[in-house]
Amino acid sequence: MEDRIIESRTTDDRITLDYGSGGLKTSELIESILLPAFDNDTLASLGDGAVLDGSQKLVFSTDSFVVSPWKFPGGDIGRLSVCGTVNDLCMAGGIPKYLSLSFILEEGFPFSDFKSIVSSIADEAKEAGVSIVTGDTKVVDSGKGDGIYINTAGIGFQRAVLPGKSAIRPGDAVLISGSIGCHGAAVMMARSGLLREDSPLVSDCQPLHQISAAALEAAGMTARASGSSAPVRILRDPTRGGVATTLNEFTEQMPFSIELDQSALPIDPAVETACDILGLDPLYCACEGRMLAVCDPETAGDILDAMRKIPGGENAAQIGTVTENMPGKVLLKTPIGGRRILAKLSGIQLPRIC
Amino acid sequence: MEDRIIESRTTDDRITLDYGSGGLKTSELIESILLPAFDNDTLASLGDGAVLDGSQKLVFSTDSFVVSPWKFPGGDIGRLSVCGTVNDLCMAGGIPKYLSLSFILEEGFPFSDFKSIVSSIADEAKEAGVSIVTGDTKVVDSGKGDGIYINTAGIGFQRAVLPGKSAIRPGDAVLISGSIGCHGAAVMMARSGLLREDSPLVSDCQPLHQISAAALEAAGMTARASGSSAPVRILRDPTRGGVATTLNEFTEQMPFSIELDQSALPIDPAVETACDILGLDPLYCACEGRMLAVCDPETAGDILDAMRKIPGGENAAQIGTVTENMPGKVLLKTPIGGRRILAKLSGIQLPRIC
Repeated sequence: MEDRIIESRTTDDRITLDYGSGGLKTSELIESILLPAFDNDTLASLGDGAVLDGSQKLVFSTDSFVVSPWKFPGGDIGRLSVCGTVNDLCMAGGIPKYLSLSFILEEGFPFSDFKSIVSSIADEAKEAGVSIVTGDTKVVDSGKGDGIYINTAGIGFQRAVLPGKSAIRPGDAVLISGSIGCHGAAVMMARSGLLREDSPLVSDCQPLHQISAAALEAAGMTARASGSSAPVRILRDPTRGGVATTLNEFTEQMPFSIELDQSALPIDPAVETACDILGLDPLYCACEGRMLAVCDPETAGDILDAMRKIPGGENAAQIGTVTENMPGKVLLKTPIGGRRILAKLSGIQLPRIC
Repeated sequence: MEDRIIESRTTDDRITLDYGSGGLKTSELIESILLPAFDNDTLASLGDGAVLDGSQKLVFSTDSFVVSPWKFPGGDIGRLSVCGTVNDLCMAGGIPKYLSLSFILEEGFPFSDFKSIVSSIADEAKEAGVSIVTGDTKVVDSGKGDGIYINTAGIGFQRAVLPGKSAIRPGDAVLISGSIGCHGAAVMMARSGLLREDSPLVSDCQPLHQISAAALEAAGMTARASGSSAPVRILRDPTRGGVATTLNEFTEQMPFSIELDQSALPIDPAVETACDILGLDPLYCACEGRMLAVCDPETAGDILDAMRKIPGGENAAQIGTVTENMPGKVLLKTPIGGRRILAKLSGIQLPRIC
């Protein structure tokens, strides 16, 4: 906006505490980096809050992102911070509309890295169809952070009413939209320093707005026509703790179990190899672009067909069934007919994965 | 929910990385501390996102809080994290409704402190009339944070349309709802270790929902009846950078200036003393519970009367006037008739004040 702002853009190559002061340097960062990246009138009004068009029913979610390293194969903390919140909105039956964006930067963080992250955020927001309409930037002293932490919160309009886990019943199908554990395995390999440049291992980080919409449309679900007998009972993206932990959240204290068929699990060979090296189980590795759905078995085929037509959904599969055996548990059925209990993640298999 | 969770509540006295894993320990923290504190059905459903009643027009805002020390006279980071976002919603003309709450905890942070902060958040949310409906908790390794950082994002329904700074015109009155600089001075004194137990210096941290509602009602403003001639042009809480920086945001690049009358500024003696000791100017010290309003001079008296009836608004005063002298600037008129320019805060007078 002002000449001196444009001129001073290039004088610093690292974040200093001044950029969090609320004064000139904060304005400079907003005017020269953030506003151009997330070009929209609402954000440009620079009020304390954004005024938005509303809807009868809203979906609201938040996540903070502290992933280490901030850049990993297939994404970075910026991309993740958009996908994470967009996906939470989608899993709650929402159409993602608006995001807030808040940075906690550590003094000394390179400006070039910050700009690259902002650019990832802008690209991903565009892909997911959301506007970044309000934000905040804080800077903490060197040694009181780890480069960059990001929080996003999101508002969506309700697309469909999902009845939730109380509507799950024996016989229901458990579906996943793609191969599992890629994000967790990719971040852990990147952190270990063992990842080769030409490795096919990449994070599955992607927005689920299209896949979730396709699944709900295939099931004929809308914001009106739903209820406890709605064909899709629950949607969830298996992030921290992975598929095994998320499914345990569905079954705990409920009168049913979920039986996974090991031979049906879509697992990329690169993820299997990485998990062997690192001593991890793909079933506990985070996904950041996969959707778990529990649905009426009669609708499962249509939902799978619909998901497979969306980029990133090609490997959608039914991976399990809801049963009455051992209520409250998640069981893994091995190819030779054995069964083992998959407990909820109890320690910290993968710290700072998102 | 489960017996082992209740039993294990007391086994740890410090946050460990496990509490951010998304597994059992995360559940334990949610079930045993967070859900009881923010008791509401929406949060208790524990989905990835909250489904909420909506409205035609929404106000949306976010802030991250990194204040050091996390506890200060008159408040703590928990209270601040509710007031900060609630006040941003109020300043944008909103009725605050819903908050998201996200923690970035450092490994080793004492559980007792965490519980005390959560309790502050619950109390303050109740006072401000907002529900905490969705949240997230991350834990970072020891040495990669500073005990606790908090992000809140908030949704409000539109109470009134504020036309913004383009509607400000010469002759308008500049009002403040109470004494200035208390929060910044209190935090800096607490940080310096110079603050005596019996000092009357306390942060002004408080929610502005009642004061902003009273002002807008006194001006007859609603979500319908407003426009560029609405009597209240703009509201803003002068946080980082204080009153001087916020007023500069109103005037910069605009065809008017704001002239403050030094003798009219409500400044507590304890703030004057603290600022003398620390070498600070109260006009640049953050407030966290004060409202600046620029309004039609004919309505100013009614607005002041209305604000003074609300607890925390007793010292509301007109502190300045919009003029055509030196467009773009903020001027301070001293008691002997001198004038000096109050520039925007350019360096970092007060790092990590909120």
